[in-house]
Amino acid sequence: VDRDDVRKLLEGVRVGTLTPDEVLEHLARAPVEELGHTALDAHRAVRAGVPEVIYGAGKTGPQVVDIARALLARGQSVLATRLDEAKGAFVRDALGPEATWHPVAGVLVARRGPAPNPVGCIGVVSAGTSDAPVAEEARVVAEALGNHVLRIEDVGIAGVHRVLARLADLRACRVVVVVAGMDGALPGLVAGLVRAPVVAVPTSVGYGASFQGLAALLTMLNACAPGVSVVNIDNGFGAAYQASRINRAGEGA
Amino acid sequence: VDRDDVRKLLEGVRVGTLTPDEVLEHLARAPVEELGHTALDAHRAVRAGVPEVIYGAGKTGPQVVDIARALLARGQSVLATRLDEAKGAFVRDALGPEATWHPVAGVLVARRGPAPNPVGCIGVVSAGTSDAPVAEEARVVAEALGNHVLRIEDVGIAGVHRVLARLADLRACRVVVVVAGMDGALPGLVAGLVRAPVVAVPTSVGYGASFQGLAALLTMLNACAPGVSVVNIDNGFGAAYQASRINRAGEGA
Amino acid sequence: VDRDDVRKLLEGVRVGTLTPDEVLEHLARAPVEELGHTALDAHRAVRAGVPEVIYGAGKTGPQVVDIARALLARGQSVLATRLDEAKGAFVRDALGPEATWHPVAGVLVARRGPAPNPVGCIGVVSAGTSDAPVAEEARVVAEALGNHVLRIEDVGIAGVHRVLARLADLRACRVVVVVAGMDGALPGLVAGLVRAPVVAVPTSVGYGASFQGLAALLTMLNACAPGVSVVNIDNGFGAAYQASRINRAGEGA
Amino acid sequence: VDRDDVRKLLEGVRVGTLTPDEVLEHLARAPVEELGHTALDAHRAVRAGVPEVIYGAGKTGPQVVDIARALLARGQSVLATRLDEAKGAFVRDALGPEATWHPVAGVLVARRGPAPNPVGCIGVVSAGTSDAPVAEEARVVAEALGNHVLRIEDVGIAGVHRVLARLADLRACRVVVVVAGMDGALPGLVAGLVRAPVVAVPTSVGYGASFQGLAALLTMLNACAPGVSVVNIDNGFGAAYQASRINRAGEGA
Amino acid sequence: VDRDDVRKLLEGVRVGTLTPDEVLEHLARAPVEELGHTALDAHRAVRAGVPEVIYGAGKTGPQVVDIARALLARGQSVLATRLDEAKGAFVRDALGPEATWHPVAGVLVARRGPAPNPVGCIGVVSAGTSDAPVAEEARVVAEALGNHVLRIEDVGIAGVHRVLARLADLRACRVVVVVAGMDGALPGLVAGLVRAPVVAVPTSVGYGASFQGLAALLTMLNACAPGVSVVNIDNGFGAAYQASRINRAGEGA
Amino acid sequence: VDRDDVRKLLEGVRVGTLTPDEVLEHLARAPVEELGHTALDAHRAVRAGVPEVIYGAGKTGPQVVDIARALLARGQSVLATRLDEAKGAFVRDALGPEATWHPVAGVLVARRGPAPNPVGCIGVVSAGTSDAPVAEEARVVAEALGNHVLRIEDVGIAGVHRVLARLADLRACRVVVVVAGMDGALPGLVAGLVRAPVVAVPTSVGYGASFQGLAALLTMLNACAPGVSVVNIDNGFGAAYQASRINRAGEGA
Amino acid sequence: VDRDDVRKLLEGVRVGTLTPDEVLEHLARAPVEELGHTALDAHRAVRAGVPEVIYGAGKTGPQVVDIARALLARGQSVLATRLDEAKGAFVRDALGPEATWHPVAGVLVARRGPAPNPVGCIGVVSAGTSDAPVAEEARVVAEALGNHVLRIEDVGIAGVHRVLARLADLRACRVVVVVAGMDGALPGLVAGLVRAPVVAVPTSVGYGASFQGLAALLTMLNACAPGVSVVNIDNGFGAAYQASRINRAGEGA
Amino acid sequence: VDRDDVRKLLEGVRVGTLTPDEVLEHLARAPVEELGHTALDAHRAVRAGVPEVIYGAGKTGPQVVDIARALLARGQSVLATRLDEAKGAFVRDALGPEATWHPVAGVLVARRGPAPNPVGCIGVVSAGTSDAPVAEEARVVAEALGNHVLRIEDVGIAGVHRVLARLADLRACRVVVVVAGMDGALPGLVAGLVRAPVVAVPTSVGYGASFQGLAALLTMLNACAPGVSVVNIDNGFGAAYQASRINRAGEGA
Repeated sequence: VDRDDVRKLLEGVRVGTLTPDEVLEHLARAPVEELGHTALDAHRAVRAGVPEVIYGAGKTGPQVVDIARALLARGQSVLATRLDEAKGAFVRDALGPEATWHPVAGVLVARRGPAPNPVGCIGVVSAGTSDAPVAEEARVVAEALGNHVLRIEDVGIAGVHRVLARLADLRACRVVVVVAGMDGALPGLVAGLVRAPVVAVPTSVGYGASFQGLAALLTMLNACAPGVSVVNIDNGFGAAYQASRINRAGEGA
Repeated sequence: VDRDDVRKLLEGVRVGTLTPDEVLEHLARAPVEELGHTALDAHRAVRAGVPEVIYGAGKTGPQVVDIARALLARGQSVLATRLDEAKGAFVRDALGPEATWHPVAGVLVARRGPAPNPVGCIGVVSAGTSDAPVAEEARVVAEALGNHVLRIEDVGIAGVHRVLARLADLRACRVVVVVAGMDGALPGLVAGLVRAPVVAVPTSVGYGASFQGLAALLTMLNACAPGVSVVNIDNGFGAAYQASRINRAGEGA
Repeated sequence: VDRDDVRKLLEGVRVGTLTPDEVLEHLARAPVEELGHTALDAHRAVRAGVPEVIYGAGKTGPQVVDIARALLARGQSVLATRLDEAKGAFVRDALGPEATWHPVAGVLVARRGPAPNPVGCIGVVSAGTSDAPVAEEARVVAEALGNHVLRIEDVGIAGVHRVLARLADLRACRVVVVVAGMDGALPGLVAGLVRAPVVAVPTSVGYGASFQGLAALLTMLNACAPGVSVVNIDNGFGAAYQASRINRAGEGA
Repeated sequence: VDRDDVRKLLEGVRVGTLTPDEVLEHLARAPVEELGHTALDAHRAVRAGVPEVIYGAGKTGPQVVDIARALLARGQSVLATRLDEAKGAFVRDALGPEATWHPVAGVLVARRGPAPNPVGCIGVVSAGTSDAPVAEEARVVAEALGNHVLRIEDVGIAGVHRVLARLADLRACRVVVVVAGMDGALPGLVAGLVRAPVVAVPTSVGYGASFQGLAALLTMLNACAPGVSVVNIDNGFGAAYQASRINRAGEGA
Repeated sequence: VDRDDVRKLLEGVRVGTLTPDEVLEHLARAPVEELGHTALDAHRAVRAGVPEVIYGAGKTGPQVVDIARALLARGQSVLATRLDEAKGAFVRDALGPEATWHPVAGVLVARRGPAPNPVGCIGVVSAGTSDAPVAEEARVVAEALGNHVLRIEDVGIAGVHRVLARLADLRACRVVVVVAGMDGALPGLVAGLVRAPVVAVPTSVGYGASFQGLAALLTMLNACAPGVSVVNIDNGFGAAYQASRINRAGEGA
Repeated sequence: VDRDDVRKLLEGVRVGTLTPDEVLEHLARAPVEELGHTALDAHRAVRAGVPEVIYGAGKTGPQVVDIARALLARGQSVLATRLDEAKGAFVRDALGPEATWHPVAGVLVARRGPAPNPVGCIGVVSAGTSDAPVAEEARVVAEALGNHVLRIEDVGIAGVHRVLARLADLRACRVVVVVAGMDGALPGLVAGLVRAPVVAVPTSVGYGASFQGLAALLTMLNACAPGVSVVNIDNGFGAAYQASRINRAGEGA
Repeated sequence: VDRDDVRKLLEGVRVGTLTPDEVLEHLARAPVEELGHTALDAHRAVRAGVPEVIYGAGKTGPQVVDIARALLARGQSVLATRLDEAKGAFVRDALGPEATWHPVAGVLVARRGPAPNPVGCIGVVSAGTSDAPVAEEARVVAEALGNHVLRIEDVGIAGVHRVLARLADLRACRVVVVVAGMDGALPGLVAGLVRAPVVAVPTSVGYGASFQGLAALLTMLNACAPGVSVVNIDNGFGAAYQASRINRAGEGA
Repeated sequence: VDRDDVRKLLEGVRVGTLTPDEVLEHLARAPVEELGHTALDAHRAVRAGVPEVIYGAGKTGPQVVDIARALLARGQSVLATRLDEAKGAFVRDALGPEATWHPVAGVLVARRGPAPNPVGCIGVVSAGTSDAPVAEEARVVAEALGNHVLRIEDVGIAGVHRVLARLADLRACRVVVVVAGMDGALPGLVAGLVRAPVVAVPTSVGYGASFQGLAALLTMLNACAPGVSVVNIDNGFGAAYQASRINRAGEGA
């Protein structure tokens, strides 16, 4: 039952075609889920223009196309992540000019209706060139969700000055996503330089005792500087989504 | 050298008592740190009324008192965390009426000057009674940092309705801290119900395969619902600090 | 809102004191939780005589007494687990003759109303004397939840014949809880001898590479014999609860 | 020695061709194994119509065919799991029309004699499309073992209402298998909604800190809601087998 | 049923008081365990003079005394391991002059009948003074099981010459137990110097990244020199038992 | 310097062409290694007919051939392990009829001179067909090192009777190698049935929480039955080598 | 701003075209980073002839070529590590005769200007042939950074005499890099023989419980002999870099 | 045999009282160990004034006193580490004025003969007050081994300027020991600022996901800046010893 269904049931009570007990029984049999569903939909309604997300890993190109077409047909924009080169090209070709394919990020965006007006500012800082795919995923997703993004690349040990050189701009951001593999020390460093919350993304870049990102993850969780919270290894999407929530905090639920 | 020192050096150049090379030499010998220090101090200056934090674990009561008195003497408010019952009472007695001791949270607050005006809203939700110390640490810290806090307790498996019952209030918050041990499933659940960012705090509550909070930590990092970022196990302070950054995002660096 | 509240709202529509939109608004604001709450309560109603569980670890004796008294005052029986010797004696003394204290199991039972009629049969098999506390927790809990229990002790490497000697009885059980530490091999062995499902409980008994029960846990998850499912390390309560669900399966939700 | 052999030996004593000591010596030399074998065979005899299981991983197609043919020749039905697309097609083609190949589940069933009459009800709930292979393995195996199955798919964070929508049906099941990767929170949620035992299957779906299913496994072992027991990661077969034992509990050993 | 019971049953068949079917039924109902039990007892009979082992950890002093007295009453010698200072003294005092208490090893031996004649030679080599308790447990147990022991102590990095100085004696041993914590490198070294099998015992001696013996355990499992097999961390008893089996190999089962 | 070199040096002293100090200087500069080398060679001299081992993993086919030819040219027999199908065939073809290739074991043996007379008996027991490569590596290596081998296959949960059926033969062995993956429970079981030492080999067979053999490894280290020592995961070679040392213990160093 | 920029600003103050406040403002806006950058560059200036390092893993051949050409164009020598066979050949062909390709090490060196004069001595010792790539990476890098290298290969369990045979040479080194996989025991052994610091490199060589180099890493961190410090698994580059710092220690910062 | 013994043997050959074969036999029977011992002793002879180290953990006060007295009686200075307050005071009182007790470091030094002349410079940098015990252990040990030490304390996230303020002094050091817990990021930072090798010491300071120093250890092993090598968690002694080797590198073996 959606909101209209409940209204019709109540209307039935009002006009006398349904008794309160009949409606009660109906609600009691399937009450939580359907009203819950309504709530979720209502919740989503305010996100007009915000794309639905398809997690592309473990799906075939045609499967992604099918889901994307179904969503677009409902007037819903689409964001597909974790597509490799071949899958991304396949989906872009299938969906046509509506679709934009970001190969480094592995993300495809297909809009139905205008993009949301970008607001605020999310900084996206990455440590090395190998971290680029994760950082680009974060950037593309953050932009698709309606945020301005300030992108700062290649902030390695010999490149801290690249953060510092743009510190003024960075300090204007409401939230900073910091992407780093290996020792994962960068987010703690950035959190000591800005007042905005830092969303840290460990990456699986590294070898040996990096244990596929575990070392970077632990470093970030133990960051001496407060103001760092952490998402899953390689989860550029999740960081961007969280940063978007922070950047748009206060827009109402 | 602080800002005034640099100005004096430059003034020396202007009036001819110092050559540019002498000043250059002076800056080159110790440039980064002192200006950096200045920057940090400047950075801190805007945080008037915000307390300095003393991490009490591994310090004796008298050590905490000494540090606190030094800070208070500089006009700085003080927040001391991770104090056990005995240490907290000792410090409160030593500092006198200025100090407020929160025994469940293990936190002591001593103000110099008026508290900052609380702004916005941070939700602090906890799963079970055993998680209370961590959640209370988060609450007390968040309030001390100048935030309104909405505290919701005991949201266990049989108590999801307590979140739901206050969902409207919770949805008015700009950020929600969710504290949970054992399976750590609560933050993902809450993130599916609100639009605000969720800062998740795993606790070491549990036994056996909870591995002192590791299970909860992993659950939160893998939360199916986006909008969750995570701090260290039992780190109520860090969650509150991060939530405060989010809640006050946009106040400028 | 509980069921009666909803009926009143609907009645209001029927008699015209409320419009459908007003009721819709009311339901939309807090629908999920309250009906959910109702559902949960209804769910619990059928469990008359089944005690509520208090997890005693991390609670003081007086806290346990307070919760127990509140539950008893509502006519609810009480089962408190993970009480040490001192806490158990304290609670028993405070609650009086209604309370039965099981020191090996660390469990206290206080009934309000008659115990449920025991049904079926749950086997509880343990490997060594050190596993007794966990196995006894399982036994006491299973009996308190209304199940017949067949208890077989000390089935170590030199004692497989104790299982075999009572194989006929064991095969009459509808479910067997098997408790073992160290190498945790017993549940797989038992699962090869009986047709009933085996609920395996690894214990933290052992040293060195037992890693506080991790070795036994992994053994059980990898049991070559199918028919084994596993609960948390030392979780005698959880095994008994699950075994009770299995033993009473088919009684209706 | 099988049962008949022992009878012959005893008959020999009765008629005087063997002395008790000779028989005793014979039994003492190989007593455990052969009577044990007899016991196992007798045990299996009651499972007429229940297929033997071939674990296909690490076996070649021809090896699976050979084992299957040998079993079928003995009048035994066959269930082969963990076959990839190529192996499954090969085995199906080799065995002919008797064999049914389930490609998503990776399971092949070949019957000799009529299937067992399905009884009771096993719910099989899965979280995401990536979990489908494991859930389908559970479904196909459960059906092959003679159980009715209620299959509920795609119960992600945005899909809890799919469980709720069919809660009445689900509550009619005697046991529910819940399959989930990533945060593995679904089984705990379901266990809070039904009274039947939940057999939880963590899957290796996820990335980064999911550690190939470890995160989901730990979540399930620490589930706050009692009534959950766990099988190995990706072990759809084991969950179905255990659920079948539970569903058919009480049929006698 | 023991051997005599079976003989009586067979005799019953012989004289006609029992039918073969009656005996068959009797054996079928409880065949495995009892004959198995018989087998085990027979197996043990040849070990006359070899003590029964009581694992003392997790048992109280009086409990150990009770078990020891029961065994002694049956004419069985007793070996109790993992007793701390207080427990060991208590048990020794309770058992009287028959008992010998080895405080460094934490082992108590109480004999009934003469000790077995020591045979062969087991080398017991330990790396540092902190490893002494484990090595002494191995020595005392090995001697109690009837083996000659060659004990070499304090073979640290500066003490390899102590092994080398007694290499000729060591090479006369049939098996060498090597006990080491920290880097656990000693067993691999010894295995390169002797032709006898090396049973390696990692100890929990160390700190930090020794992870309570895990580092030493892994080193030993990966020993470059073949001829090393490993027992559990701190398991001096198990190493001695295994070494005794090796030293006495060929005495017949 | 080898033995002859030292003799020449000493002869030089005797005849007066070298002073004691010159010889001392020579020995002091490189004393340990060369005499050590001599010792090792002497040590090896007694192992006439015992092959040298080439670890084939990570070496190319031609590399293995080169090393093998060099050893054979020195009159040394060769045992090459961890060769895959292609490498094994390549090496066999290159070495000619002297070489025997064991494809399941991945082992190639090439003899120079007669094989050692096999002695004693090593039991090699394996749990499932997937464990065959490791068990066969153990068998081939044990035979190549001059031991009789009793091979027992496929002792799964439904196949314990295969061990029991040959228990008498097994009890005649001086040492038993037991190979098992998944839950790794078999070695503990066997150790309870025989008096010979058991060398346990965990295999990486399994999935999910077997963690590539870690579960089996831990089970074996925690085996309740004493008399089990463990080698590295999948290390059939190491188990055979250790078993050979045990089987031949007492032949002198 | 570099040093010259600051001098120009100060000169502006001296001549009166800039006020002290204007310069202060300029420095305050971007002070840390640029002076920091200057400092780093100055720091690097003394390293004339020392190549810049390109980490080749995760970069395509053309990407490496582009970066290398850019560096060479600036007069900077280039060291590219972690190139596989194909990438290395591609880069060498693209850069022409200036480039030297070391296939075992996976390292390419391209010089601009003369190589630094080699100084001191770095020993590079490796355990087995499988460790050669890591050890060769260390050797090539150490030589490219201007150090004499003493390379000792194949120091396995049967080859300790190769270290000992060259102990005098080795003792002349100022630092020794020791590369070892499997049990990782070699560095501790070497540290006991020389007075120079040992930089230990664990390698991922091994299988099973070597856990991709974790076992060797732990062994080295727990080495009983002091004088060992450790770099990441397989990090031949890092060991060489650190050894170069040690070998050249005292040349000034 | 020591050097003199060998000389006597050779002299015997020279004068004809011993044949070359007799000496050869003598050397062959026990050659490795004794000359090895000689070598080690000779090696140690050059370390006059350098104290012997007693690892105090796990030893009683009287045991430490006994060992210390024995060493002092041989004219050997003594360094005892890991003594707690009570043990340290006990040993100091027992040894008298020769002994100096460093309570923060937990180290006691007792000299026989003059201290070695301090040389070079070792920087010892620590991150927080909780890291002081480990850093002080490093400082006291480094000084006792004859090195100048530059100690810089409390370099937390808000204290990087303390390093920078003394960067010129630090750059004069030949090696820098950096001690840090929690995220362990400091060593990588320092390695980017100085040209000297950095010896990193992770500490067990922290909580939750610091896993008793594991997080800091991994961070340091993965440090993005080259020039960092790592010792065991909390191993201040080992870092000082290694730094001393580096600082004194080139003094000859």
